[in-house]
Amino acid sequence: MRDVHALAPAHDRLRLSRVGVTAVRKPLVVQRPGRQVTLTVSFSVAVDLPSTRKGSDLSRNAELLAEVVDWTAQKPVESLESACSSIARELLVRHPYATNSEVLGEGEYFAPRGITPARRSLEDFRLFAEANATRSENGEIAVTRSIGAEAVGMTACPCAMETAREKLEKEFPLLADPSLKTLPIVTHNQRNRTRLLFDLPEGADVEVDQILEAIEGAQSSPTYAILKRGDEADVVLTAHRHPKFVEDVVRDLLASLPSRFPRLPDATGVRVRTVSEESIHKYDVTSSHATTLGEIRTAAA
Amino acid sequence: MRDVHALAPAHDRLRLSRVGVTAVRKPLVVQRPGRQVTLTVSFSVAVDLPSTRKGSDLSRNAELLAEVVDWTAQKPVESLESACSSIARELLVRHPYATNSEVLGEGEYFAPRGITPARRSLEDFRLFAEANATRSENGEIAVTRSIGAEAVGMTACPCAMETAREKLEKEFPLLADPSLKTLPIVTHNQRNRTRLLFDLPEGADVEVDQILEAIEGAQSSPTYAILKRGDEADVVLTAHRHPKFVEDVVRDLLASLPSRFPRLPDATGVRVRTVSEESIHKYDVTSSHATTLGEIRTAAA
Amino acid sequence: MRDVHALAPAHDRLRLSRVGVTAVRKPLVVQRPGRQVTLTVSFSVAVDLPSTRKGSDLSRNAELLAEVVDWTAQKPVESLESACSSIARELLVRHPYATNSEVLGEGEYFAPRGITPARRSLEDFRLFAEANATRSENGEIAVTRSIGAEAVGMTACPCAMETAREKLEKEFPLLADPSLKTLPIVTHNQRNRTRLLFDLPEGADVEVDQILEAIEGAQSSPTYAILKRGDEADVVLTAHRHPKFVEDVVRDLLASLPSRFPRLPDATGVRVRTVSEESIHKYDVTSSHATTLGEIRTAAA
Amino acid sequence: MRDVHALAPAHDRLRLSRVGVTAVRKPLVVQRPGRQVTLTVSFSVAVDLPSTRKGSDLSRNAELLAEVVDWTAQKPVESLESACSSIARELLVRHPYATNSEVLGEGEYFAPRGITPARRSLEDFRLFAEANATRSENGEIAVTRSIGAEAVGMTACPCAMETAREKLEKEFPLLADPSLKTLPIVTHNQRNRTRLLFDLPEGADVEVDQILEAIEGAQSSPTYAILKRGDEADVVLTAHRHPKFVEDVVRDLLASLPSRFPRLPDATGVRVRTVSEESIHKYDVTSSHATTLGEIRTAAA
Repeated sequence: MRDVHALAPAHDRLRLSRVGVTAVRKPLVVQRPGRQVTLTVSFSVAVDLPSTRKGSDLSRNAELLAEVVDWTAQKPVESLESACSSIARELLVRHPYATNSEVLGEGEYFAPRGITPARRSLEDFRLFAEANATRSENGEIAVTRSIGAEAVGMTACPCAMETAREKLEKEFPLLADPSLKTLPIVTHNQRNRTRLLFDLPEGADVEVDQILEAIEGAQSSPTYAILKRGDEADVVLTAHRHPKFVEDVVRDLLASLPSRFPRLPDATGVRVRTVSEESIHKYDVTSSHATTLGEIRTAAA
Repeated sequence: MRDVHALAPAHDRLRLSRVGVTAVRKPLVVQRPGRQVTLTVSFSVAVDLPSTRKGSDLSRNAELLAEVVDWTAQKPVESLESACSSIARELLVRHPYATNSEVLGEGEYFAPRGITPARRSLEDFRLFAEANATRSENGEIAVTRSIGAEAVGMTACPCAMETAREKLEKEFPLLADPSLKTLPIVTHNQRNRTRLLFDLPEGADVEVDQILEAIEGAQSSPTYAILKRGDEADVVLTAHRHPKFVEDVVRDLLASLPSRFPRLPDATGVRVRTVSEESIHKYDVTSSHATTLGEIRTAAA
Repeated sequence: MRDVHALAPAHDRLRLSRVGVTAVRKPLVVQRPGRQVTLTVSFSVAVDLPSTRKGSDLSRNAELLAEVVDWTAQKPVESLESACSSIARELLVRHPYATNSEVLGEGEYFAPRGITPARRSLEDFRLFAEANATRSENGEIAVTRSIGAEAVGMTACPCAMETAREKLEKEFPLLADPSLKTLPIVTHNQRNRTRLLFDLPEGADVEVDQILEAIEGAQSSPTYAILKRGDEADVVLTAHRHPKFVEDVVRDLLASLPSRFPRLPDATGVRVRTVSEESIHKYDVTSSHATTLGEIRTAAA
Repeated sequence: MRDVHALAPAHDRLRLSRVGVTAVRKPLVVQRPGRQVTLTVSFSVAVDLPSTRKGSDLSRNAELLAEVVDWTAQKPVESLESACSSIARELLVRHPYATNSEVLGEGEYFAPRGITPARRSLEDFRLFAEANATRSENGEIAVTRSIGAEAVGMTACPCAMETAREKLEKEFPLLADPSLKTLPIVTHNQRNRTRLLFDLPEGADVEVDQILEAIEGAQSSPTYAILKRGDEADVVLTAHRHPKFVEDVVRDLLASLPSRFPRLPDATGVRVRTVSEESIHKYDVTSSHATTLGEIRTAAA
């Protein structure tokens, strides 16, 4: 059969930066310390296409994904990003006409959480990995990797808390008593989704569980599936004792990274995005920032 | 050309209850008191298919939707449900082999809201309409209609509020002072989506703006797009002075209907569903109930 | 602490048919013949609430889901529907004031597919299970179960195929040659999503893999992740040799059930819904029908 | 009241690149040649935040959106991108501490389409606009704008068409007759979503209807809501006479831009992304490229 993809294209001077498959859903079995977990991942993989070629051989992408990912049922991989890196590198082997490849994996990850050990259950988080491979002139392939995660937690607004106190002190004069100065005051609180991604220099590595801990540590409070009557109040009180704007979530998360990830090099890229699904509005509030660990360390010095 | 749809099917004793088109998006212009509004509606329309016929002539559905809906740019209709009723009736005219039809319309509706007149802006709500037409043995067509709406508001949890007070009174003894008995206490609050649908007996009618008011009146507080500093506290205080479980939202909404809709007959069907996107959990909490206005009036008697 | 949920409600004559939690995501480990699979399931669980009680104790729902589902990592369950049945029954034990419960589970399921054994890979399907438990006057609990699945396949339109042939025969007179009478002719083809659910009488059971096979057998062709050049043409030719309206998909699926599921009793409920994401339209085309196996057997007799 | 947002933040050396509101839904009335259309738009607006300030005053964003967008019901704007530009500029006026702003608007747009004038109806498309404002050291504000659109059409695969012909010629030898050389042959065809965005240099302008025409001209065929029996075959034949990979869609679209938009300057940025929702696979196939009109003109020279 004639290989239609290998024909010259009609417009023969236009290269394309990306051709691939997307929304390929796969179960990826990952070996975590002490347990195996199955991530349900949506993969997007692509390579570039030179101007001399009509089409990319996309069946190779599907084959490669099946080889790498399906096989993890027998032999789990170390992590989502190690799977993405392998796929990115191998894409350039199987598409010899390509000079760069991109692999994105986004998966659901269940990890145990509980306000006490007795209340522990599996809760859902999201993981992200990106890998880009480049073939140099001499044929060597270099791969860069990013790894990230998203956690749902809670934010309580510091501004409405302060204005509510002002209004309440007029109605309840006793509230101004010094002994009630630190009494948590009503405000709006809501679901907050925060994601943190690291663009890793070669050799650097990071655990997704640590990423999730960093995120949850920067929200007003983590949230939990199982909360008995008294526990609910504890979460509420924690959140109201740590009221945060979306701006605070991003800054507190960024500021926590040097101590949480002391071994990551200065060149590590850092991307944070947070979204609060405001309880007092029908729309969401968001903040984002991209920087490097080096810049954060300098700012904190 | 041969009409393939009119052929006898391979399995000639199987009728089908529904064949149609779905996710047909259209702008519907509606004449509201004093203003025209454009709803972006997703329509699903279907008719039944007798066992003797292979296919339904679906292009008639697309033509009919275009005739009824596109034309509203020139000549607005009275309401989403009147458009759905017309379509349901006309479907039986254009599909002479069918004995019943179903039309569902779900649209986005923008209505003005503001915590004060100066803060008014357009906010988004959802409208729902259903119409079912039936052709009787003697060829007459009867149409039943349902109409509903959904509003996003806020709920504040009464349970965590009470347990938080218990805990706080231990830490802040002055809080137990009788003068602080009605002080609003911290709890979790969140986005709540509530929908109310009426299944209308013939001749009965209802305004969607009244449906939205009823829903917003049953939540802990409505929410608003524009809230300046002091306004935020007002919404927060309103919500904390009306703490509600999802159960309370449904019951308060049901209980409010007799006085809000005195002219609707007892036979009017009522369907309520509420979902609170909990700030302390990653999952949602929900309650729903279906009844009639007559039953609600009896329960309240 | 005072149990706020157990208080009398404000509107004390209104019972509620459903109060519960929804969108609870969990990994469910299922033991399939020869392999364990992890389903990522979204659960909704609810019980009714008597008119005398203000609230449902929702933390019990979260606890129960954790106990039943999280534990499957150690001890897999037989199926999604057996997990749902256990949860439905146990809900009535833990909510002694309730008389009925409802559990819905919808999960992603990966099963091997390939146009040849060498092309096999894991592809994604959806599973559905429903369980309803009822407590009778004497305290006994009865559970009814439904189980279903959805597969994506391909449909090719028989009508456009016939009109295209008419037009092409005018342009290419040789096409009318009798030897080309069965030549597959161009038409529009597209993604089709079909789901089949069984409402099972007591004691009846069904394998989800068989449900998926029945669905894929009723579409114009199954689809596959890995298709090398010649394989693509095979899928295309299969689809064009089995052109089907959505009506045909539903009827062919219904008609296949008596021979595919000979042991299921006549009282088994059957629900089919198919959606073709038309390539020639921006909207979808759909057909659905609900019946019983007994009715299908009678129609086929 | 104390302005909590204006306080110094806890981490006082961290600026943030974006703080704002997202998913703000609004109806935007646009004056098109000869008719007014209402777009349902989802807006995201954000400004940067200096390291010295704790929070951004987000209520100004909601107020500004209301002022600019709600008012279009009385006085329509020229276009989505002109609204976004105004908002981006005004954001810097209202947030004096900010040095750049970003506005994204994504809306649904209904435009008339028909395979013949008699079959014309309103069909749905998507519009995109981005505006970024920057305040220079001397206080001047400069705004850059992007404008784009997305259309759903159809692609037919050229590769499966060729391999299907090879297979069919073995089964139907007469098919090899020279008179049948241009007979359209079966292949897989599917929904294709293609978007084109222009990053406009100052003073440059473009009509969204022209963008949509360019996109539809690069797909195998446009699609239509109303197709009577013979029309369906026409669309099918058009698509099979213009079989295209996703690569072809992107290249044909890029190659068509110099003649379609002769007045746009070389510096105009061009971004194309296409996704084919493959009928033979459960996943999608995609291609994308970013370049400038100048580069395309050079390649075509």
